[in-house]
Amino acid sequence: MSKLIPVGVSNRHLHLSQEDIYTLYGQCYELKPLKELSQPGQYAAEETVTLQGPKGSIEKVRVLGPARKQTQVEISKTDSFILGIKPPVRDSGALANSSPITIIGPKGKVELKEGVILAQRHIHMHTTDAEELGLVDKQLVQVEVDGERGVIFKNVLVRVHESFALEFHIDTDEANAAGLANGDKVKIVG
Amino acid sequence: MSKLIPVGVSNRHLHLSQEDIYTLYGQCYELKPLKELSQPGQYAAEETVTLQGPKGSIEKVRVLGPARKQTQVEISKTDSFILGIKPPVRDSGALANSSPITIIGPKGKVELKEGVILAQRHIHMHTTDAEELGLVDKQLVQVEVDGERGVIFKNVLVRVHESFALEFHIDTDEANAAGLANGDKVKIVG
Repeated sequence: MSKLIPVGVSNRHLHLSQEDIYTLYGQCYELKPLKELSQPGQYAAEETVTLQGPKGSIEKVRVLGPARKQTQVEISKTDSFILGIKPPVRDSGALANSSPITIIGPKGKVELKEGVILAQRHIHMHTTDAEELGLVDKQLVQVEVDGERGVIFKNVLVRVHESFALEFHIDTDEANAAGLANGDKVKIVG
Repeated sequence: MSKLIPVGVSNRHLHLSQEDIYTLYGQCYELKPLKELSQPGQYAAEETVTLQGPKGSIEKVRVLGPARKQTQVEISKTDSFILGIKPPVRDSGALANSSPITIIGPKGKVELKEGVILAQRHIHMHTTDAEELGLVDKQLVQVEVDGERGVIFKNVLVRVHESFALEFHIDTDEANAAGLANGDKVKIVG
């Protein structure tokens, strides 16, 4: 299990449903891809929104594409204190009873009843990586980080799919706490 | 080594030299204690300052008292991106070649040439705690955190002194990454 895994740091971002894209940007609007992400088919869009919580707001939050079935907002716990909400730690897509938020775009706003989460740290891996490492989808592993802010992250979720590229995804709090940046390498230790 | 250690989360703050207190607040000014801290003799003052970096500024940064020999500013890595500086991870007091910053008070400002650090996570402990745990001053240990964001923090500095109360000190990035709040309990695991 000594294979090195590149780190991908997720800044706050959101995935929008087609309906919410239309509400925020206008009927029949299409997101403009700005930059391909490391996960195949995913992209950062030119579009950004403002998130408005009960305590404060955060501007210029990046929209990722393509559209998803349900709108999902991923922020750090640091962000949650600014907004004044208490989102749960969740795997992507597990949005039942997650936090509400107001999303403001240039043409309208969406009062999201649920959809804000702190993303559970996870490793995307292709089926062949999983076979090589002896791991299966949804398994929990530990990831070790070296250096002066070295840590071992417990409860790291393994996500296996033929469309995934090998990458350890953490949010900005986790990256800053462990002294990690995009492209740094970590390893699975158990 | 199963003794439980309470967590103390350090938000951004600064310690001022007597000279810098006078520059920021006026000659012969005395800090006004607002709240005693868990470390005996230390207090949060009523006074706050603005930190101004090359990229941005942060207002209402709390001054801690009493005055120290040299001004020291402790921020999170998240804060460092807002300010546009790259402070090193350091033990308290080890300020040589740490980052510069401008400190703005109501009566003046201080152009600090060095003094901004990311505080190295550490455990304060009384001499009797150290004896019980079989640890010595400046030893590095590992600290385990349970829960859904569980981690093992490596390179945790042990600081032993007769004036110290047992407490694990981390910054807001580290607390948020590990799902920790003031008063939570952790344990030393190696």
